[in-house]
Amino acid sequence: MSDKSILDLLKSTTDRRRFLRDGGVAALAVGVAGACKPQAAKSAAATTIQPAGQTGGTMGPHDTAAGTATASADAMDAMHEKGIKAFPAKTAGTGNQLMQPKLDKGVKVFELTAKKIQWETEPGRTVEAWSYNDQVPGPQIRVREGDRVRVILHNQLPESTAIHFHGLELPNAMDGVPFITQPPVKPGQSFTYEFVVPNAGSHMYHSHHNSAKQVGLGLLGAFIVEPREKTSYDNADVDEVFILNDGMHGYTFNGKSFPATQPIVAKLGQKLRIRFMNEGMMIHPMHLHGMHMTVIAKDGWPVPAPWKCDTLNVAPGERWDVMVNCNNKGTWAFHCHILPHAESEHGMFGMVTAVIVNDR
Amino acid sequence: MSDKSILDLLKSTTDRRRFLRDGGVAALAVGVAGACKPQAAKSAAATTIQPAGQTGGTMGPHDTAAGTATASADAMDAMHEKGIKAFPAKTAGTGNQLMQPKLDKGVKVFELTAKKIQWETEPGRTVEAWSYNDQVPGPQIRVREGDRVRVILHNQLPESTAIHFHGLELPNAMDGVPFITQPPVKPGQSFTYEFVVPNAGSHMYHSHHNSAKQVGLGLLGAFIVEPREKTSYDNADVDEVFILNDGMHGYTFNGKSFPATQPIVAKLGQKLRIRFMNEGMMIHPMHLHGMHMTVIAKDGWPVPAPWKCDTLNVAPGERWDVMVNCNNKGTWAFHCHILPHAESEHGMFGMVTAVIVNDR
Amino acid sequence: MSDKSILDLLKSTTDRRRFLRDGGVAALAVGVAGACKPQAAKSAAATTIQPAGQTGGTMGPHDTAAGTATASADAMDAMHEKGIKAFPAKTAGTGNQLMQPKLDKGVKVFELTAKKIQWETEPGRTVEAWSYNDQVPGPQIRVREGDRVRVILHNQLPESTAIHFHGLELPNAMDGVPFITQPPVKPGQSFTYEFVVPNAGSHMYHSHHNSAKQVGLGLLGAFIVEPREKTSYDNADVDEVFILNDGMHGYTFNGKSFPATQPIVAKLGQKLRIRFMNEGMMIHPMHLHGMHMTVIAKDGWPVPAPWKCDTLNVAPGERWDVMVNCNNKGTWAFHCHILPHAESEHGMFGMVTAVIVNDR
Repeated sequence: MSDKSILDLLKSTTDRRRFLRDGGVAALAVGVAGACKPQAAKSAAATTIQPAGQTGGTMGPHDTAAGTATASADAMDAMHEKGIKAFPAKTAGTGNQLMQPKLDKGVKVFELTAKKIQWETEPGRTVEAWSYNDQVPGPQIRVREGDRVRVILHNQLPESTAIHFHGLELPNAMDGVPFITQPPVKPGQSFTYEFVVPNAGSHMYHSHHNSAKQVGLGLLGAFIVEPREKTSYDNADVDEVFILNDGMHGYTFNGKSFPATQPIVAKLGQKLRIRFMNEGMMIHPMHLHGMHMTVIAKDGWPVPAPWKCDTLNVAPGERWDVMVNCNNKGTWAFHCHILPHAESEHGMFGMVTAVIVNDR
Repeated sequence: MSDKSILDLLKSTTDRRRFLRDGGVAALAVGVAGACKPQAAKSAAATTIQPAGQTGGTMGPHDTAAGTATASADAMDAMHEKGIKAFPAKTAGTGNQLMQPKLDKGVKVFELTAKKIQWETEPGRTVEAWSYNDQVPGPQIRVREGDRVRVILHNQLPESTAIHFHGLELPNAMDGVPFITQPPVKPGQSFTYEFVVPNAGSHMYHSHHNSAKQVGLGLLGAFIVEPREKTSYDNADVDEVFILNDGMHGYTFNGKSFPATQPIVAKLGQKLRIRFMNEGMMIHPMHLHGMHMTVIAKDGWPVPAPWKCDTLNVAPGERWDVMVNCNNKGTWAFHCHILPHAESEHGMFGMVTAVIVNDR
Repeated sequence: MSDKSILDLLKSTTDRRRFLRDGGVAALAVGVAGACKPQAAKSAAATTIQPAGQTGGTMGPHDTAAGTATASADAMDAMHEKGIKAFPAKTAGTGNQLMQPKLDKGVKVFELTAKKIQWETEPGRTVEAWSYNDQVPGPQIRVREGDRVRVILHNQLPESTAIHFHGLELPNAMDGVPFITQPPVKPGQSFTYEFVVPNAGSHMYHSHHNSAKQVGLGLLGAFIVEPREKTSYDNADVDEVFILNDGMHGYTFNGKSFPATQPIVAKLGQKLRIRFMNEGMMIHPMHLHGMHMTVIAKDGWPVPAPWKCDTLNVAPGERWDVMVNCNNKGTWAFHCHILPHAESEHGMFGMVTAVIVNDR
């Protein structure tokens, strides 16, 4: 479990200080081992009445008749707290790492090896994954509109495979659909895709052979195409790819489940761009606390009139780009609002992370 | 079962007269007890041929060979009819009641007590609910942009809880996420939230602790913020909050299932605003018969260009505001278009209600 | 199984020629019977290295250690290939056929007989269907805004039924909801709907009685209303209705499952309009390869600002109209991106078809 808890990350956040002072730290010290312990110590802190203001709530006095329920509640809360305290938890492996291409006479060359690996989705949960270059999601490919790109796929899987560049308007032979646009790439074989990148935006690459299984197991990644002519959105201070998945690996963001999901960290006043991509089988309405999102693109295409929301429904295969003006300091929960994808009696899990806005 | 049936509500509606005259009333008299009775009486009425016009259909003569099927069909129809006749059925308890705040030196104070109750979702179906102030949904909070608001939560549940104000861009300490922005509010404890309301729109408040269970059981309500500067939409003749839920209480609108759902009633020519909010785990594409809806806001934010539809897909956590120009007289079915959320072999149930447009 | 395979359809497509020359034809000759045969012959062709260019990928040499995996992969690939080779497969019955009305003193008269039939959804899979005029979907009704229309429903089903004209803003008595706007139409009875068509767009007609079952079994069809004043969209070169369904008949497009789905065929440079309609219980995010879709209407209403996408989430009851500029030659997969609705270990199935763009 990670030593670098969210509290460490946040120790400079002034909004958090009151909570820590008022009982949060004491509470966090209890953990699961103390689940049955009466909450005397915590209560002492938690019931310290503070003047209610813009930046701090007030905990009232205890109802003394509620002892038994409280003991049971403490046990549940300790589990919830343990998850939060572990966030962002360390796990083996990081997906979606930006990949540097090799250059071959002006062509950007990306080599992707599809193979079976073990993948840790959260501390202590390791699953079989089918990966590109040992990552889930596969390495992030980021090129520019008009670039000539070569993607060399090496198949070390026990099945045939192929890569579809989801969202790119390629020549048909590069579309990656076995028996329609190319033969399947057999185990042990390689296949080379090469094309001039035709359209900008947030796209994806993934298997298009036995895809319910192969994509479900991890054969997917982001294919970001920066436009030839940049807009203000392309100069975001923070630019994050956010790949949603469900199914065989559980509910994941970029291949990890809470508390192993990674927070997005920004400074007050920064512009944050998030590129949502759904590689799963279910919708995931993504809800950001504390700040709204302005939707700027759908499937890589700028929307004609940007619109605002705090909950964005992302369906399988869709990509949505949003901008967040990070004008509200603090640690903001950021999760799928299908609540059973995000929280159980044992605490938060799956599709939960945070956007952390720090002092400038 | 309710004595005040939809037919009473509608007796002034001229469009309905022909149907009543042509057999509807006879049919309605049959009920379940008469399910196996041959439909001779009804047929006599139903086969009265009327000139087909703009406002009435024509029932043709019987195929006399269809006797057995008809008897079986009658049994099914009687069940369907019984549900419609019961609508809107009386049940114990009404959720989403507008709450009057107490005023404390200019602060609007709302006290919410979270406790376990029994809740009647439809006649004869009573379930365990976790409620605010004995209502499911909790009382409707309606304030103005810039108001100073205090929400005092009293926890009488057997578990800890907390309130998240979904959609409000509050200071972090008021965001209601245990162990991230505040300690959990233990059984018997109280907690005070206080803030200046920062942004207008149709928002929600709900538990953010063990939320899949707590929200599923009813710890949710509408938080409506009227804008500082009103638009034409804010002067709607009828302004309805429409909270969708699924899961432990069945498929509900504002905490009730058909036939206990309440119709929206308007007069011809009136402007109706509906504020959809999804507190469930599934999408619900809401379909209105007879008139279209113009979408004016998403998650409380005005859309840049209003757009029209008759079926609006509302995902968990989303709010959508629509306007309906009530220009078509009659009783219009209004339901989720995932048909298994709305109708079974036994008749309509769950997510069904009506928009009733009466004479001016 | 169909003799007229997709390969025949495509023999004029130059992009396909290289694949055929490079091994595709050899591969296609193997079939299921040869599933366990070593792939020597195919390999010989497939490993012929071609210069990678804009229009053809390159298959690399074999990893000779991968023999066992390859044999197993061959078995799977043969099943996948068999499905593709069969597409578009012939089946008994065609739904959604354009219906010619009879004219009666200026009234366009459509007679619809609801009855139980057997319906072949894909080769060898025949299911019970409840149909209008022996078609699933029922015949396509296509009229003009302002037309006077008469729809005569004959009920030969074992249950009562009724027709709701989903999206049309009709007088209440024509709305088709038993016990609310009309009596149910009993087995053996007929019912006549008559109205002046009030609003243009892509609409639907379907049962509104015991609808989860009756619509699920096939009592549905397209009701297209051409606008009084045509726009450029109304002069599309190809205009396709695309009715999505799930449930009792499996995952279907216009009543058929892959490989019996029908491709959309257009010529390079043509404008294609697709009218999506979801009559099922689930969302279906429709993904087109190779070209984007421009969304022009929602539920028959023009969107205020058309927007682009390659994956369009269609929810139950919704209709979305899109335009595709057919500027990319080839056979493009076109499928629901909930992958388990489209592909299994045995190959593509269900919600898969193709948009085929041929030479001018």
